[in-house]
Amino acid sequence: MTPSLPDWLQYHADTTPERLALVAGAVEWSWSKLYCRTGETAARLAQAGVGYGDRVGVLLANGPEFVLVVHALMRLGAVLIPLNTRLTAPELGWQVEDAGIKLVLHDEPNAPRARMVTAAAGIPAISAQHVTETQGRGGKDTSRNVAVAHHRRGNTIHPVTPPRSRSIDLSAVHSIVYTSGTTGRPKGALLTFGNHWWSALGSAVNLGNHRHDRWLAVLPMFHVGGLAIIFRCAIYGTPMEIHSGFDAAVVNEAIDRRGVTLVSVVSNMLRRMLDEREGRPYPDSLRCVLLGGGPAPRPLLEECARLGVPVLQTYGLTETASQAVTLAPEDALRKLGSAGKPLMPTELRIEHDGLEAAPGQPGEIMLRGPNVSPGYHNISQKQHKQHDGWLGTGDVGYLDEEGYLYVLDRRDDLIISGGENIYPTEVEAVLLSHPSVLEAGVTGLPDARWGETVAACVVLREGACTVPEELQAYCREHLAGYKVPSHVEVVVALPRTASGKLMRRVLRERHAAA
Amino acid sequence: MTPSLPDWLQYHADTTPERLALVAGAVEWSWSKLYCRTGETAARLAQAGVGYGDRVGVLLANGPEFVLVVHALMRLGAVLIPLNTRLTAPELGWQVEDAGIKLVLHDEPNAPRARMVTAAAGIPAISAQHVTETQGRGGKDTSRNVAVAHHRRGNTIHPVTPPRSRSIDLSAVHSIVYTSGTTGRPKGALLTFGNHWWSALGSAVNLGNHRHDRWLAVLPMFHVGGLAIIFRCAIYGTPMEIHSGFDAAVVNEAIDRRGVTLVSVVSNMLRRMLDEREGRPYPDSLRCVLLGGGPAPRPLLEECARLGVPVLQTYGLTETASQAVTLAPEDALRKLGSAGKPLMPTELRIEHDGLEAAPGQPGEIMLRGPNVSPGYHNISQKQHKQHDGWLGTGDVGYLDEEGYLYVLDRRDDLIISGGENIYPTEVEAVLLSHPSVLEAGVTGLPDARWGETVAACVVLREGACTVPEELQAYCREHLAGYKVPSHVEVVVALPRTASGKLMRRVLRERHAAA
Repeated sequence: MTPSLPDWLQYHADTTPERLALVAGAVEWSWSKLYCRTGETAARLAQAGVGYGDRVGVLLANGPEFVLVVHALMRLGAVLIPLNTRLTAPELGWQVEDAGIKLVLHDEPNAPRARMVTAAAGIPAISAQHVTETQGRGGKDTSRNVAVAHHRRGNTIHPVTPPRSRSIDLSAVHSIVYTSGTTGRPKGALLTFGNHWWSALGSAVNLGNHRHDRWLAVLPMFHVGGLAIIFRCAIYGTPMEIHSGFDAAVVNEAIDRRGVTLVSVVSNMLRRMLDEREGRPYPDSLRCVLLGGGPAPRPLLEECARLGVPVLQTYGLTETASQAVTLAPEDALRKLGSAGKPLMPTELRIEHDGLEAAPGQPGEIMLRGPNVSPGYHNISQKQHKQHDGWLGTGDVGYLDEEGYLYVLDRRDDLIISGGENIYPTEVEAVLLSHPSVLEAGVTGLPDARWGETVAACVVLREGACTVPEELQAYCREHLAGYKVPSHVEVVVALPRTASGKLMRRVLRERHAAA
Repeated sequence: MTPSLPDWLQYHADTTPERLALVAGAVEWSWSKLYCRTGETAARLAQAGVGYGDRVGVLLANGPEFVLVVHALMRLGAVLIPLNTRLTAPELGWQVEDAGIKLVLHDEPNAPRARMVTAAAGIPAISAQHVTETQGRGGKDTSRNVAVAHHRRGNTIHPVTPPRSRSIDLSAVHSIVYTSGTTGRPKGALLTFGNHWWSALGSAVNLGNHRHDRWLAVLPMFHVGGLAIIFRCAIYGTPMEIHSGFDAAVVNEAIDRRGVTLVSVVSNMLRRMLDEREGRPYPDSLRCVLLGGGPAPRPLLEECARLGVPVLQTYGLTETASQAVTLAPEDALRKLGSAGKPLMPTELRIEHDGLEAAPGQPGEIMLRGPNVSPGYHNISQKQHKQHDGWLGTGDVGYLDEEGYLYVLDRRDDLIISGGENIYPTEVEAVLLSHPSVLEAGVTGLPDARWGETVAACVVLREGACTVPEELQAYCREHLAGYKVPSHVEVVVALPRTASGKLMRRVLRERHAAA
């Protein structure tokens, strides 16, 4: 049964038009307003040539424009490809080509790179501000008043009874979201409307859904963690408060003064939030701090427990449309350090040597369910999903006797810095492309602020006399800032196994000792 | 996309085994306990010959046994046919035959009729107590302790990792529920797992889903309104408090003392609840009183508004797996008297002479969505559903300018007098606003001159001694002449169905006989 789901944005615009949908600074939009603006944006995008099935790159910071573009692309049946704003032009160029992107929408700060990348690909770059601003009103918002007027038949913008009910096909691909690949190249995970829908429902069964919720959207929307907030809010009818960047004081103020009840953050954000308020407790209205982006440091969790901060650890991947496993609120203390149990209707098992692991025995985390991506763009499906639908995550963890997941580590070599995933091979590939570098080994080092930071060891070619700073500068040209090694050490040889495989663990220990 | 939904009961038994699932008097079961008992019940039913696809009649009062039987039949893939315990043996016999029931489960009070009906049909009648009681423990419950022990690997009843994940096919028929049948024979509406699932999700988007919710199950579970509570609770993981019958004082006590946050009732129950507490306000923990079973009298809604009782009117049918249209909490006052807007993902329109009605124009209420029954048992689908999935409800209502539904009346109840349409509820509302009137039922009587004329039956408040002429005079003050009842009869009770719905047909016959 594929239910004909009416468009959820239209649903809230119809049923609760005056409720708040979105706050960002001085901007306050009702569902009706968001719906109207989405229609206008979709019309502009259609004029710009965007049609059904077209792939559209979106290079935007968090803001109302991002939300408008997401909804407008859905309206047109176009496929969203969110692009990481921290990537360099060459990194972006590769994704634009791989995804077959037809045009790139960008904001002003990202305009230079967008133009560079699109010029090289021979496709248009379009200002998101241009397609999302209100005609003749210069982007100035009167928001809620408009919604009320429209429903009082005063100043009609669109009819109260919409012209035609739109429906959402849950099996259609909504987005292609790139994740760092082990091979060096990022992979584009296909996410269907159904993936987002089931993910949002599973979260609602676990976290609940309250009438006066307000969800903080400070995680970048180009990552699945931020994108999922747009979906959850649109499905539940919950307002989102959008922050264009992370500022601990501003986040704390949103919780204290503006009724934010749900917060999605990564560890270093939470660390900075706690530091900023210096022991002052959070109000009871804060229902949940959803903590993703890799295993959290235990001292941080213990501090939250002492302060009564309602932290719920969660484990998810781009391929599971964000959260797949989340701790239930009542287990936050009893199961400190656990990522909890799978969200409905996700299934979880741990596989060790091809068999189901016993409680306590570590193995690969396997996930199955309607929130799991059907596959990668341009990559044969077999590479990540088994014939029976199980996704091998590559991450290691174990289940305790009661079935709670403890994530031990992301795939051995993955570095997580400030919530961003970094695959060492990608950094190594850049180092190796430098004419002086013969061999390169990259690993993560513990870092108080970011969780981990990138460290590299390189073996130089004979006669080369390149200094570390020069290699860091080179990396900065080719890699997003968070991927650039903070330490580069020139060595005479890299630790390798007999078969020549790099021993990253030894590398890490060597760095740690240094 | 038909997602492979893991069994929701199993899901909660796995993820939150120790949370409370069910309370009924001294009985308190955790999800783990309910899950274990369901397995035991399913095994007994299988021994009794119940298998996949078998139709099983259930003639039970509300209680834990009813819930166990519902879950155990799901486990076996058998089809539930809930039987109204107020029916006579001939009425039951007709349903048993029509549905092709293989066996009837009953409790002690209903045993005589169950035996009579099954003997006539040549099928077995089995005591529900026998199949649901715990082997060797004589039905005594140790409940939560068992759940804890089981998860601590102390006294294992079933393994923590269940033997095999069960899945739910949303398109499979779960139950055949006979509708009250205002005219002629009752019809057996087919309800799929998907109908119940989408109904529950739509309700969660509207009412929210709170961690500390507790849902009062006092509506008979053999009606869709009570059955739906079992589903919502099983899907959200919300505990239900089961009452075997309605007692206003006991319901009020459950709200005041035992943390019931959600209550599903019909108007006359709510009336009695308010009378019992004599103006004492309800605690803030009471989130929502879901008021179904037909249009509510306006004086009752106004009284609730004055007292701050969070009443939400709802409109639904057996064919929509309960609620289909419900008022949003914030509109409770502003839209007093409205049934609200359709629940996600239901669509609603009003049809007048085959066309979509204008705002304010009454017409037939049409509904479409994945919560709508695929059809009736033994009746060609065309009789109720159009080719494009729209269900003609036969009920009359209109949408206001903002799209809120006002249910005027069930179509069958419409009184037409001298070419003027009269909706009985309008006349009843006036009668109920008279200080002496406790209950009122209005119907049409054949009339030689006008086609039909209005007749009323009223139940007076204790101690009131108002005479019919006085009430007619009162109506004349508030209603157009043609709407004033030509007959008013004072009675001790009004004929109602088990779910509290007024049986106007019986009223009409009573008048006609008089």
